[in-house]
Amino acid sequence: MEQLKNAIIERGSVVSDGVLKVDTFLNHQIDTNLMIHIGKEFANRFKESKITKILTIETSGIAPSFMAANDLDVPLVFARKKKSLTMNNDVFTSSVYSFTKQETTEIAVSKNFLQENDQVLIIDDFLANGQAALGLAAIVEQAGATVAGIGIVIEKSFQNGRSLLEEAGYRVESLARIESLKNGKVTFLADKTVQTI
Amino acid sequence: MEQLKNAIIERGSVVSDGVLKVDTFLNHQIDTNLMIHIGKEFANRFKESKITKILTIETSGIAPSFMAANDLDVPLVFARKKKSLTMNNDVFTSSVYSFTKQETTEIAVSKNFLQENDQVLIIDDFLANGQAALGLAAIVEQAGATVAGIGIVIEKSFQNGRSLLEEAGYRVESLARIESLKNGKVTFLADKTVQTI
Repeated sequence: MEQLKNAIIERGSVVSDGVLKVDTFLNHQIDTNLMIHIGKEFANRFKESKITKILTIETSGIAPSFMAANDLDVPLVFARKKKSLTMNNDVFTSSVYSFTKQETTEIAVSKNFLQENDQVLIIDDFLANGQAALGLAAIVEQAGATVAGIGIVIEKSFQNGRSLLEEAGYRVESLARIESLKNGKVTFLADKTVQTI
Repeated sequence: MEQLKNAIIERGSVVSDGVLKVDTFLNHQIDTNLMIHIGKEFANRFKESKITKILTIETSGIAPSFMAANDLDVPLVFARKKKSLTMNNDVFTSSVYSFTKQETTEIAVSKNFLQENDQVLIIDDFLANGQAALGLAAIVEQAGATVAGIGIVIEKSFQNGRSLLEEAGYRVESLARIESLKNGKVTFLADKTVQTI
């Protein structure tokens, strides 16, 4: 998605070989116009998948999911990272380990918002080690619902998240795939074209 | 705002005399269509205020702010509830006490995203004791910027938040004002009309 790649190049910054900072448009300050285009792109890629619900995770998954849910005309549910006092105990839960923060977080979704006939599109801002997406998928499966696919804004293709998700049988659609952040430079994965001899 | 009041009546639930649960459309499952209408209503109410930025707080402030920022064509910034590892230390901070959770949270906004010439519209999902809005306003003022107004989705008018904000000189626009949650019933504050004798 060219508009997203341009935003990463022009407004992102490489903090280290593993960390890309995009707080200028995605996860602190939000460019809602870009988020609308991102949401519509997700909706378009999964428009044949009979999606009935979108599941994301607070906080940074909400903005890129917003217009996907609106375009597909389905509810947007976000997993909470800890239970709030007004959430009842009737929740699906899963544990997510963050390599960046080096801590495990419990995520939870009320049983009211996932049913066994749901076709769920999971959306998250980043895919690195795949732990958040796998945690969300585990919650979908606890509900007896189906993971129809996983939409990612920015994939760090040099980490193993995509492999783990594909091995688990999930369709993964990433809008920007980053091959490397070495030497302070963002290199996108070239689109693989089948070579005919 | 009638569409919001109807959602509260039809899809909300009164947990106690002080607690209204709206996780079916606002703060766990999100009705993006309703959120778009809410965002547009905020944009309309503040369209003369020369807003340059919208400031909200994670997580539940993002969805109702989204289309307000898009309609006013300004960036949406959300305050983080704790510093993440990739956020530098160059932040404005404030402390917010939650009576519901009975705990104090630090909120932070990067100094990159608020400048002294900014006219800031603060948006939050609930107004009860006003602590979150006052914390956000404190951050705006640390930046030397101006609080152009405060937009609230649901105001608990039986608590003192609005008084505190008005005493501090802020314009408050709430889309639904709740007079009482007593006996499991939502009563909205009647629109006050000047009586002519």
